[in-house]
Amino acid sequence: MTSPRRTGRRPGSTATRQEIVEAARAEFAAHGFRGATLRRIAARAEVDPALVHHYFGDKDGLFAATVTLPDEALGRVLAALGDGVDCLGERLTRTFLGLFEAPATRDQMLIVVRSALTHDVARDRLRDVVEGTLLAGLAGEIPEPERRLRIELAMTQVVGLVLARYVLVVAPLCDLPLDDAVALVAPAVQRHLTGPLPAR
Amino acid sequence: MTSPRRTGRRPGSTATRQEIVEAARAEFAAHGFRGATLRRIAARAEVDPALVHHYFGDKDGLFAATVTLPDEALGRVLAALGDGVDCLGERLTRTFLGLFEAPATRDQMLIVVRSALTHDVARDRLRDVVEGTLLAGLAGEIPEPERRLRIELAMTQVVGLVLARYVLVVAPLCDLPLDDAVALVAPAVQRHLTGPLPAR
Repeated sequence: MTSPRRTGRRPGSTATRQEIVEAARAEFAAHGFRGATLRRIAARAEVDPALVHHYFGDKDGLFAATVTLPDEALGRVLAALGDGVDCLGERLTRTFLGLFEAPATRDQMLIVVRSALTHDVARDRLRDVVEGTLLAGLAGEIPEPERRLRIELAMTQVVGLVLARYVLVVAPLCDLPLDDAVALVAPAVQRHLTGPLPAR
Repeated sequence: MTSPRRTGRRPGSTATRQEIVEAARAEFAAHGFRGATLRRIAARAEVDPALVHHYFGDKDGLFAATVTLPDEALGRVLAALGDGVDCLGERLTRTFLGLFEAPATRDQMLIVVRSALTHDVARDRLRDVVEGTLLAGLAGEIPEPERRLRIELAMTQVVGLVLARYVLVVAPLCDLPLDDAVALVAPAVQRHLTGPLPAR
């Protein structure tokens, strides 16, 4: 057989992989996780189903690939972590909220959060990436053995605000200017990161 | 026609309504919100589809009826609100977490939370009920004009912890004894309820 692939790209190219991810996004959006099929995703992407298996393994693996954070997200979070522990709670809160405020990242952030709340695969992936980033980024700022606990506590407050403001859209929290929203919860986040912990 | 209804109950009875809700729960669990049909729910409940419309209007209304809080939930929350503002953050946190700890209420609480995060109808209903309960229950404890804002801030922290501990199942937060989990976030909740607010 000498007929080339219809798209004219090599099957192993990054573009093909990305095309499958886009097709998967559309399929998951249209049919939900349960209803989506790898065969239909392959048809949307105009590739052989075997190629989908080759790149992503199974439907779980493909789903996880569709719910990645925006490229710049972790870089921005990492940048916010330097500069010492003073106002760390405010910088961390502002950075996460900022990802939901900016039109370029907002929709993808919402998809990732909603997926993490409803799909174990997306949840595990997001948790690992965010925790890994924060654990490494705060290694010089927050001593062990409490670093992981403090980061998770801080994230309960940040995520709670994110949900109220951007997912549940609770007024007045959703209507406040960003600065006001940050000012309201930053003290709680800071306390989780550097304040006293109860005796255990 | 003299043939009675198959179940032998009057069509308007509470039992019939409850039977439709149970059938709807099973249908939504099996097919998701999009896939569920009122016709199939009526068939499961062995009632005429017109009766489903009569009681619940449309699929949104029926869905909302399936995601109600456990009967005792709001009563327990209201009971926790009395007794002054001292330790109010701890009582509120402990009560909400307790609803997720107790086997009798845990599953239903998780269904309500997950539904509220993914379905606007369930979200609006839960928000109205919880906010209404807290706004009324704290009328004597937290003065206006900040009562609603303070309650919502407190709930961002409580909900963030609930998600981490029971939905996202993040270790070590999910492994802590209830008392430890409460002790870790109660100060933040208390601060939201009665502490200083930033100047606006």
